[in-house]
Amino acid sequence: MHALRFHECGKPAEVLRLEELPPADLLDGEVRLRILAAPVNPADLNFIEGNYGVKPELPAVPGIEGCGEVVESRSPDFQPGERAILLRRAGTWADEASLPGEHLFKLPAGIDPLQAAMLKVNPATAWRLLTAFGTPPAGSWIVQNAANSGVGRGVIVVARTLGIRTMNLVRRAELRDELLALGADEVVTDDDSAVESAKTLLGKDRPHLAFNGVGGESALRLMNLLAPGGIHVTYGAMSRRPLTVPNGQLIFKDLQIRGLWVTRWIESAPREELDAVYGRLAGLMLSGELSVPVAATYPLQDFKAALEQVAGSSRNGKILFVP
Amino acid sequence: MHALRFHECGKPAEVLRLEELPPADLLDGEVRLRILAAPVNPADLNFIEGNYGVKPELPAVPGIEGCGEVVESRSPDFQPGERAILLRRAGTWADEASLPGEHLFKLPAGIDPLQAAMLKVNPATAWRLLTAFGTPPAGSWIVQNAANSGVGRGVIVVARTLGIRTMNLVRRAELRDELLALGADEVVTDDDSAVESAKTLLGKDRPHLAFNGVGGESALRLMNLLAPGGIHVTYGAMSRRPLTVPNGQLIFKDLQIRGLWVTRWIESAPREELDAVYGRLAGLMLSGELSVPVAATYPLQDFKAALEQVAGSSRNGKILFVP
Repeated sequence: MHALRFHECGKPAEVLRLEELPPADLLDGEVRLRILAAPVNPADLNFIEGNYGVKPELPAVPGIEGCGEVVESRSPDFQPGERAILLRRAGTWADEASLPGEHLFKLPAGIDPLQAAMLKVNPATAWRLLTAFGTPPAGSWIVQNAANSGVGRGVIVVARTLGIRTMNLVRRAELRDELLALGADEVVTDDDSAVESAKTLLGKDRPHLAFNGVGGESALRLMNLLAPGGIHVTYGAMSRRPLTVPNGQLIFKDLQIRGLWVTRWIESAPREELDAVYGRLAGLMLSGELSVPVAATYPLQDFKAALEQVAGSSRNGKILFVP
Repeated sequence: MHALRFHECGKPAEVLRLEELPPADLLDGEVRLRILAAPVNPADLNFIEGNYGVKPELPAVPGIEGCGEVVESRSPDFQPGERAILLRRAGTWADEASLPGEHLFKLPAGIDPLQAAMLKVNPATAWRLLTAFGTPPAGSWIVQNAANSGVGRGVIVVARTLGIRTMNLVRRAELRDELLALGADEVVTDDDSAVESAKTLLGKDRPHLAFNGVGGESALRLMNLLAPGGIHVTYGAMSRRPLTVPNGQLIFKDLQIRGLWVTRWIESAPREELDAVYGRLAGLMLSGELSVPVAATYPLQDFKAALEQVAGSSRNGKILFVP
């Protein structure tokens, strides 16, 4: 088998190498997948750099999610030819991966493997954001920044299925029409005017739930838009800047500043809950409602070009490896 | 009656005046108190400056707490000569105050009026910090900064009555022995070495609850000392600096950043709960266990000298008005 591996943490383009590895022996209960697609997520880059919540055991194969086809199975739950996503870290930036059947979620027939490769993290994060802190009642508002990110788009789609209205902050104003078409209720530009613009659109309503994937000033704007007693949830930090929380937002306004890491849920939730949530999200993907734009796909050997495009500013959509 | 009043928000020494006001007509159910003592709290100064959670209706008499003796009563619950503290804002920087009997808490006989004047805010804040987010089990640790403040000392005393151990950060190392004598389990200096010093003393234990009255760097030290999933509660901001929260503390470590304002509890808690908590805290004051050092007392007319001493750096203890 072939895999991208790194032997020390550092800049991905510098420390990754495409290596040939002996195929793993398949243990009882395990399944061998041919990887069909695996995206490049910000969390993958942080992992390679050593800046993620889980530290790599070196040498390591990155790739926190991906989609594959069963080529060999010692699990009663899987047959060759079936497709699945990997729910646990197993190094998807490779042409093959082996893991216990209970760490897989079987995909419905007909789902696009590129889309399915992006099912584990972002759509599930969107689901958890909307449900883990008390699902807002239908008709109420949530507010989020990074609304055009994988998670942000997932929030828009999932919120609509729950009848929840979304106030969306985006850095680039030209994304407005695209997000409205996706089901966003309102879209405002994430700059100094965002709070006033959003308040005008909200009237007397104030959201009780805010989702922050950016940090810094943008995170503060969400605090200013929340109702007293509201919950501000950080799931990402695109700006790489910490949160600044004015004391009055905590003491007098009684905001709760929380965090969400979907991996913690995946590793602790009952299997029935995982099946129910991923089943629902896979259904939204199959119907085309939940869809992430794909900017480009690359074979593993072109990883430097892939990483270059990831770092570039102009792309709209995900970069995936298709081994 | 005489009262310190301000007609516009600003620096307390500049905007306050001692004024003679007509005594209020006593309505049915109301009680008139002669004020025995009223402290100068940071919240009072913020209120006069217009920086508090409640904005003044001008002209306003400051004083969020105080102790008085009943001189006239139209409430069946109070007789002249009885002593009480004011549970609602009624302007205690005066020689007299009138308010409904249900906004008073009757004091046990024999309690020192200077100490009782400081019962409403800080001891109750300490009680709420220790109980409002799930009372930690006996034997477990909490960590706090500003451990020598009114709230901090209250936390040390109340935690001891609950069997909870306290790790205390103080700015001035020379306070160590005094806080240990008060019942503190450990005291470390709140500087760059605080986290390592506290970790050494804690061994493998990590607190699940942290109380922050400072903000800035000191608040961050508390986050670094908390266990995963821990709760970080801000009740004050002596440094006048906001909190900086690293994203990883929220996403991967799952900390909850919360706030506590005791006024919200006083205004919403059932009367039985207020009576039970203030009864318990008054008992600790009566026994001498709960005691705040008094730096000096001043008559109302010497308010400029009082405020000057409050602003000074060398005092250890509270300044109170004794009209």
